[in-house]
Amino acid sequence: MKQILLSHGGGGEETQRLIKDLFFRYFSNPILEKMEDAAVLEINSKLAFTTDSFTVSPIFFKGGNIGKLAVAGTVNDLAMMGAQPLYMSCSFIIEEGFPFDHLEEIVRSMYEEMKKSGVKIVTGDTKVVPRGSADKIFINTTGIGRIVYDGISASNIQEGDIILVSGTVGDHGACIMAQREGIEMEGDLKSDCATLWPVVKDLIDSGIPIKAMRDPTRGGLSAVLNEWAESSDIGIEIEEDMIPVKDEVQGMCELLGLDPLTLANEGKLIIAVPEDQAEKTLEVLRDNPLGREAQIIGRAISDYKGKVILKSSYGSKRILEPPAGELLPRIC
Amino acid sequence: MKQILLSHGGGGEETQRLIKDLFFRYFSNPILEKMEDAAVLEINSKLAFTTDSFTVSPIFFKGGNIGKLAVAGTVNDLAMMGAQPLYMSCSFIIEEGFPFDHLEEIVRSMYEEMKKSGVKIVTGDTKVVPRGSADKIFINTTGIGRIVYDGISASNIQEGDIILVSGTVGDHGACIMAQREGIEMEGDLKSDCATLWPVVKDLIDSGIPIKAMRDPTRGGLSAVLNEWAESSDIGIEIEEDMIPVKDEVQGMCELLGLDPLTLANEGKLIIAVPEDQAEKTLEVLRDNPLGREAQIIGRAISDYKGKVILKSSYGSKRILEPPAGELLPRIC
Ligand SMILES: Nc1ncnc2c1ncn2[C@@H]1O[C@H](COP(=O)(O)OP(=O)(O)OP(=O)(O)O)[C@@H](O)[C@H]1O
Ligand SMILES: Nc1ncnc2c1ncn2[C@@H]1O[C@H](COP(=O)(O)OP(=O)(O)OP(=O)(O)O)[C@@H](O)[C@H]1O
Ligand SMILES: [Mg+2]
Ligand SMILES: [Mg+2]
Ligand SMILES: [Mg+2]
Ligand SMILES: [Mg+2]
Ligand SMILES: [Mg+2]
Ligand SMILES: [Mg+2]
Repeated sequence: MKQILLSHGGGGEETQRLIKDLFFRYFSNPILEKMEDAAVLEINSKLAFTTDSFTVSPIFFKGGNIGKLAVAGTVNDLAMMGAQPLYMSCSFIIEEGFPFDHLEEIVRSMYEEMKKSGVKIVTGDTKVVPRGSADKIFINTTGIGRIVYDGISASNIQEGDIILVSGTVGDHGACIMAQREGIEMEGDLKSDCATLWPVVKDLIDSGIPIKAMRDPTRGGLSAVLNEWAESSDIGIEIEEDMIPVKDEVQGMCELLGLDPLTLANEGKLIIAVPEDQAEKTLEVLRDNPLGREAQIIGRAISDYKGKVILKSSYGSKRILEPPAGELLPRIC
Repeated sequence: MKQILLSHGGGGEETQRLIKDLFFRYFSNPILEKMEDAAVLEINSKLAFTTDSFTVSPIFFKGGNIGKLAVAGTVNDLAMMGAQPLYMSCSFIIEEGFPFDHLEEIVRSMYEEMKKSGVKIVTGDTKVVPRGSADKIFINTTGIGRIVYDGISASNIQEGDIILVSGTVGDHGACIMAQREGIEMEGDLKSDCATLWPVVKDLIDSGIPIKAMRDPTRGGLSAVLNEWAESSDIGIEIEEDMIPVKDEVQGMCELLGLDPLTLANEGKLIIAVPEDQAEKTLEVLRDNPLGREAQIIGRAISDYKGKVILKSSYGSKRILEPPAGELLPRIC
């Protein structure tokens, strides 16, 4: 089986060949192909700029792989700031001996995922490290987007604003944990890994006034809500029963002692909008396959400033603490 | 000794604290501090955009460390395209158990190096992987620059153009190899790791017409010259004796069976200019400490298209083949 060798990262002929024969085959565009020290871009707009490194293990999982995740993850961070994803860098750190076929499958997934937003890879880097110096493959993607909806911020939320989630929470985290623990997964349990730009575009095109928007990745719903409460200096009251959680995810959480509210999502968004826009927001979300199971889950209140309150259907209340000490490494 | 724990990468409280208490202490600026999903930038200009991941081993070496290298490396790729470095992302992959002190030293070096160009870190990411999943620390930096001198390209070189190098070659590669082999290094043998923007700015301010410019990192001088010969479809004739090489580097190369012309540099540039600008270019380079030992090393010729010819002082000629199969992993 063809493998990645140290020489593929040496900067000589083999590196050039790998770049041209594999990466360019899928990523190709006129800007990338120039192969200079930096790509040249012309964008006349306010920009969004974001980075993430991906170290997920296993690298292939139900619903995606590290390549799909690396494209969707960075595109989503741009989209959350109201930015249309335009350009991306991608940088690979590959362990010596990594199967060439796997690399190609990852690169192909990246290509497929880029089509969902139209983002283009215009610059890259390829490093190969000796066996044992890295576990299989790590990918960094760094994105640039054109801000088409300005002013979204975690600190914008005011009393009365409504909080919605675009679908079920915890899917990605539960899937990765289950696969890592070798638990047989039945039915629908798979990562939600997806590019959110199309549904964000729908929200913007519909004229929804977006106060805050975030993708609840590491730390899950709980981390985002706590950050919002703190940044906006408001309380956030959540109807616990309104948070959509798949049965399979709930089951996996009970088995492994996890909380779906702190598990990572990779294809969901949380959004805060003015009260009178909540129903319209829900409709726009549900009209898109990416938001089919969207729910209104809560509102901003003047009490409990800086805190998130979970209300049960019986009316009891408890504080949802920000996640801490969680040991879920390599979830993304 | 304080160490990096898996929880520092979990996305919860500990991650927030590490970002605020360590990274923001050195990197802080109003754009970064917003801590949203993406940084918001306003740049009204053509942009350069480039990425590199750094995996160098050892992470601390004579003349620098992985942090300094990660800043200088990306800034240099922007500078080589005539771009003033403005913004950078930085993304850390840290092995569980990595000493906190070492991380702080790396971050402090990044801060010091950023001052040399004025580049600012405006977005970041922090992942922690379990012991054994990565070797110590990897850093990705991705940079955005404002193009102040447009049109530099590896494919611009014409017959008669003169090739200069800004100083001695092979220093970084020889230093890393020596340290890795545990060879006592005497005297001046250290990495040339440096931010080249100040000397590039001098070249631009002096009105030098820059045809091509490149930092000879992996693959060294040999890789760049061969790429230029191919991209510009010209021959390149180099006077071997004019290439500056430190005695210590030459000695180390003889000891280890390496060629200084294929060793990585991290603070050198190669530039091609029209013949009548060569002397002025040499002066401008030598006037800056970063180019004190600059030399005119050769010229573009119409023979030997796509090839690099090394001429010895006795008049003999040989072809300088593009580097291949080099096994110098983790040099940058
Ligand atoms: N995985 C990749 N996908 C797409 N393009 C890539 C990839 N790796 C490298 N490239 C492109 O190939 C060219 C050469 O990359 P390379 O990393 O060798 O350049 P460099 O950063 O100047 O050198 P170094 O990495 O040694 O500092 C660049 O134009 C880069 O954008
Ligand atoms: N090493 C770092 N240096 C500077 N800023 C950082 C660093 N790591 C993270 N940040 C900043 O902290 C904020 C939170 O980063 P985080 O990576 O948690 O966000 P995210 O990318 O949306 O989440 P995830 O990485 O789980 O997808 C961002 O604004 C980011 O720019
Ligand atoms: Mg370069
Ligand atoms: Mg992210
Ligand atoms: Mg590179
Ligand atoms: Mg995010
Ligand atoms: Mg580089
Ligand atoms: Mg991140």
